This record gives sequence, structure tokens and C-alpha cells, in this order.
Amino acid sequence: MTGPKTIPMAALETPCLLLDQTKLKANIARMNAAVGRLGVQLRPHLKTAKSAQVGRLATQDHQYGITVSTLREAEYFADHGFRDITYAVGIAPSKLDRAAALIAQGVDLKVLADTVDAAQAIAAHDASFKLLIEIDCGDGRAGVSPDSQILLDIAACLSGAKSARLVGVLTHAGHSYGVNDIAQIIRIAEDERQAVVLAAERLRAAGHTIHTVSAGSTPTALFSENAEGLTEYRAGVYVFFDLDQQSRGVCQTNDLALSVLTTVIGHNRDANKILLDSGGLALSKDIGANAFRPEVRYGEVVALDGPALSGVYVTSVSQEHGHVKVTDPALFDRLPVGSRVRVLPNHVCMTAAAYPVYNLTDGRTITEQWERCNGW
Amino acid sequence: MTGPKTIPMAALETPCLLLDQTKLKANIARMNAAVGRLGVQLRPHLKTAKSAQVGRLATQDHQYGITVSTLREAEYFADHGFRDITYAVGIAPSKLDRAAALIAQGVDLKVLADTVDAAQAIAAHDASFKLLIEIDCGDGRAGVSPDSQILLDIAACLSGAKSARLVGVLTHAGHSYGVNDIAQIIRIAEDERQAVVLAAERLRAAGHTIHTVSAGSTPTALFSENAEGLTEYRAGVYVFFDLDQQSRGVCQTNDLALSVLTTVIGHNRDANKILLDSGGLALSKDIGANAFRPEVRYGEVVALDGPALSGVYVTSVSQEHGHVKVTDPALFDRLPVGSRVRVLPNHVCMTAAAYPVYNLTDGRTITEQWERCNGW
Repeated sequence: MTGPKTIPMAALETPCLLLDQTKLKANIARMNAAVGRLGVQLRPHLKTAKSAQVGRLATQDHQYGITVSTLREAEYFADHGFRDITYAVGIAPSKLDRAAALIAQGVDLKVLADTVDAAQAIAAHDASFKLLIEIDCGDGRAGVSPDSQILLDIAACLSGAKSARLVGVLTHAGHSYGVNDIAQIIRIAEDERQAVVLAAERLRAAGHTIHTVSAGSTPTALFSENAEGLTEYRAGVYVFFDLDQQSRGVCQTNDLALSVLTTVIGHNRDANKILLDSGGLALSKDIGANAFRPEVRYGEVVALDGPALSGVYVTSVSQEHGHVKVTDPALFDRLPVGSRVRVLPNHVCMTAAAYPVYNLTDGRTITEQWERCNGW
Repeated sequence: MTGPKTIPMAALETPCLLLDQTKLKANIARMNAAVGRLGVQLRPHLKTAKSAQVGRLATQDHQYGITVSTLREAEYFADHGFRDITYAVGIAPSKLDRAAALIAQGVDLKVLADTVDAAQAIAAHDASFKLLIEIDCGDGRAGVSPDSQILLDIAACLSGAKSARLVGVLTHAGHSYGVNDIAQIIRIAEDERQAVVLAAERLRAAGHTIHTVSAGSTPTALFSENAEGLTEYRAGVYVFFDLDQQSRGVCQTNDLALSVLTTVIGHNRDANKILLDSGGLALSKDIGANAFRPEVRYGEVVALDGPALSGVYVTSVSQEHGHVKVTDPALFDRLPVGSRVRVLPNHVCMTAAAYPVYNLTDGRTITEQWERCNGW
């Protein structure tokens, strides 16, 4: 499945993923420069790519660790030589043995908790877990408030731990995806920084040693103007970008490295529809870009060689059908049955997860195929 | 991955799929009885289950063929002994060679087209394709109008075919999912029947032999009161059912055979949220049930042993987090970190596609694991 093999694009079965390696490398360079300027480390979140090859590209300039969102990813990247891994989703007690097996293999594994119950289970375990306490910086997902008593209570659980120890705090400004204004992103980045730094300071004041102060999302890592007190930024979707990010002004359409290659499979002239073989499973049902670009629906249709087909979108989906509403009948002639186009996805993390492999392309041929690790 | 192996439910990694075999068999029996009463055959659509074991259960009472939505499914089911397969998504010319390989293996394969271009490509191919012309019965997805000239034009393409031949017409009343009233479903079923029968009659009047007159969706196959002129019904989601179907009155919550086993991984008391390890990838972002049950959001949370936790839903998702909004603080004590619940999905075809395996359960242990075929 993996490794160099030049094959003509026409030989690909559709739907499948096309990955533009030039754009991928440019996106990685942009984030490296942005975070480098702030004087902190970048810990790429590989939940987007789930690919060892992308992980190597994203870390080659700084030789720092990575972030993952599942133990399956942690195991996959450990199998591919990555040794410094932060599992940035709260760990349940039932998952500790599986995580401990990674530590036993030599992985420097950081785990996350936001409750006393989870911290006690970690403290009672034989494995030398490194704990990061999750901080809610305003996103309202997981985490504890930086000024809460529970922050200190969780830390206290580790004082008498068998082997585990507290090493830091971590937050994620997921609400940075909710705005399409760079000035607002900069303010959210500053809120994110202040929240996690406050948590670190309170823990230090209580006598704990805090090495890691981790923040990040693609928008805040790219646009932050101040990383004082942080040790690292985490970001994931930047390697590919997508219409979610483009619709929020974080990137341009031309930066999108990943698209879905798809074939026209039908015409319904009475209903003014062209049917594609990329439906809800091939694109996902995420419509995140619609908050700021409601015309996007399930994806933007572009020509094989790049440019958008002006105003052509996947207007609805069923399981294996992408429906393109036709406003200009000339589109039926331009896209006959059997012709191929690409679809730019709303949220690339969701779309890519339907596929086992990336087809690397220079625009004409497929130069390599890179595997993905999916599931749990 | 496949075959009998009794394992304790607690040994399962989450998120994963739980399949209640008793409910699965009852759902299959209900559809068999409904279609049997109409005097036509049932051709189960295995795009939902993508499992040879489910396919065998769904066909064992009538030894009839199956329906699939991708060539990958067709190949998988052919590998597992199924010989009579309808590929019920319009075929692109570039897929004909792959489909022809199935015919060469002895598969009785029916393919679908709704354009002259596709029909000409099929007619020009060496393989003995059996063509079904797709009819739009009001859904407005793929297909031609039953009273259109293009219907006759497509059929005429096959008259001089090398090996292919026209065998019938096929339609799908996808708009039957858009209502929650049985009387309306019955009317849509009658529209579906009339459309595809009209197409068959017009083709016969033009001198074509039409063997197959195929209609169906789970709602119309279950509630149709008249199958005159049809030879078969196709339906898929009935094997598992889901909240989409429950919200439309097609089944009861207790009929849902498939759920996602999930673990509580965090508490955010300030934001009144419980976090689960089933997020957008584990549940899908389909929210189809919300049209009639807006409270459902991304899924309904139920206890391990069955009953709903009154008014508890997955209110939002990120990639690996399911967010449960807490309205009664007692829920934090009832669902401590590490506890397990199940989530009933909106649209089971979308949810199941994230997993490689079904865990068959009697409610206490896992009695078997059945593989799924995913991708294209």
C-alpha cells in the first residue's frame, strides 16, 4: 500500500484521496515559521493526517514530539518510530493498561485528565505516566477552569503516585474555529495562552513542577502574537487545510492540499442534477464551512488540474451519491458521464477518515501512496 | 476478526459497535413478512450492513439476490458466495472493466444507467452486462422520468449491443425518508410503484423485454399496500434500524439493533458537560433524525443494558469527543469517568462505516465478531 509507485491518475478507482505534496510542504513550512517566530516548539497533531509520512514531514525541521487523539494512533506512530507522543484526549481508567504498554515499549507518553477520578486511577497505576491536566480556556469542551479548586485537587492526587507524575497543563481553543476574523483569532489566542499559563502558575505556587504548558489550534498557533509562558503549540489541520479554514480566512483555497477525486455517474436533466460517486461516506456529512460560506454545502467542485468550476458545489449527498445542482445547463456538456473532477472538503479530518490511503500527486500522475491509520 | 469468540463486554476497546442479534433477526423477519405479503421478492440492500453474515441472515428465507452500492461491496459479497447482485448506483464507463471481472467470475451482475452515454459504453463492452435503467419516481436524485424520451433512447442503445442486454427498470423513493406519517409513506410507495411500472410498460410497448421491475426503500417496502407490476423490493436500513427511522414512525426505539459502545472520558462541571469517547468520527455527523426529533442531536444515550437515560443526548461532537450537555447535576454521579453507555445513532449506514467489525452481543458478553467491508 505504501511507497513509491508511479501510476497514471486515470488508473485510480474513485472516490479516492488526492494529496498535493507541494502544497502539503508549503503548509508545513508556514506553520513551522509561525510557531518558530514565537520561540516555542510545535507539536503537530497527527489526528488529521494519521500518516507516518506526513508526521515525518511535519517534524523533520525540529525533531520534536507529536500529538494524537486515539491510542490506535499512538500505537501506529510508535510502530513507525515516533517516541515523544501526547495523547491529547482525556484518558479513561479502562485505557490505562493499553497506554502503559506503549510506555513499556519506550514511548515517552503524556496522558490527559480533567477529573480527580481519572487522576487517582493514573496515580494508582504501576506505569510511569506523565500527566497533563486539561484546562478549559473558554471552548467549553473538556477541561477544568484555570482558577478552579479541582485543578489543585487533581494535581494533589499525583503527589503520592506509584510511578506517575504531573508534568504540565494543556488547553485547546476550539472556539477559534467559530470566528472568521483574524483580530478575533488573535484575542482568542491570547485568552488561550493566559488560561493555561494561569493554571501552570497556580500549580507551581502549590509546589508542583510544571514542565509543559501546551496550547493550540491551527488558527491560534498561526496567528498568536504572544507565547510567553507556553512551551509548545499543537495544531493539526494546517497540514492539509480545508474549506472550514478557508471560510474563516485562515488560508486560501489554493492552499488546500487534499481533495477527493470523483467521477460523474449520472445526469438527471429533469431535476437539474449531476450525480457524482462521492456521497456522504466519501465526503463526510460535515458542513462546517457553511457557517461562513453557506453556498459550499458538502464541498466545492474543482477541475482535475486545479481551478474551481465557477459556482459548482456538492449541494446534497446520500450514501454513495454526491448531488450537484445544475444552474447552467452547459454544465451537463462540460461534465459528461465518466468525466472526473475533484471535491474540496469542508473538514478534512472527517473526510480523510473514510480512506485507507493518500494518493500523492504532481497533478498528472500518482507518485506515491501513503497509508493512513483509521479506527480505534 | 470473524467467527465465534465469547469475550466479556468489558474487554472491548471503545468506541465500537454492539449488534443485538435478537433484534437483527426480528427486523429481518418483519421485512420478510411485509414484502412476502405483497407477493414479490425482497432483494436486501447490503450497503447498510456490508457484512456477509448479515447478508446470509437477510436472504436465508428466500434465497434471492442482494443489492450493493459500490463495486467493493459487490466484490466482497461475491468472494463470500453471493452470486445474484444488483449494483444499484449508476455505473461510470471507467468502472465497466472492474464490473466485468465479476461477471467473468460467474456473478449474475445487474448494473444501472440513466444516460445514453453510459448505455452506449455498456453496449460497446464485451461483457454480458444486464442493464437496469434508473427511474426517478419523484426523489429528484438520479434517474430519468418514466414518461421521458430519454428512457426509450437509453433502451435503444442496447438493441445493437455486443453482449449486454436490457433486463429492467429500477427506482428508489428516497423521499419516503422525508415524512413521518404512515399514510404519506403509503402514498409515496404507490407513486414509486406507478413510476417504475409505467417505465416498464413504455419499454415493453417499444418492443423491449423487461424482466425486472425493482422499487424500494425501507419505509415503502414495509408499508406498501400494492406491488402490482413490481418484481422485487429493495431495502437496507431495516436490518438495524436507527433514530432516523424511529423519528419517522417506521420502527420503535426498542427495535434498534446497533449502538455504539462508549466510555465517559471527562467531566467539565463548569460547562455542565460530560465527555464521551465517541465523537464525530465514531458517530458520524449525520443528524437526520433531527428533522422530526431535534433533541436527538448526534445520538441518544442509553444504558448498557437497554433503557434510555431520560433526556440524555450527544449534544455536540468534535473529532474524538462526544459532548453530553448535563441538565441535572446528578448525571455526573451516575456517569463517572470510566463508566460506559451506548449511543443510538441517527443514520446507522453512516455510523457503521467507521468500524471494521460488529460485536454481536446477548447483552452481557460478546458472542461473535463479524467483519464489515468498507471503502471503495
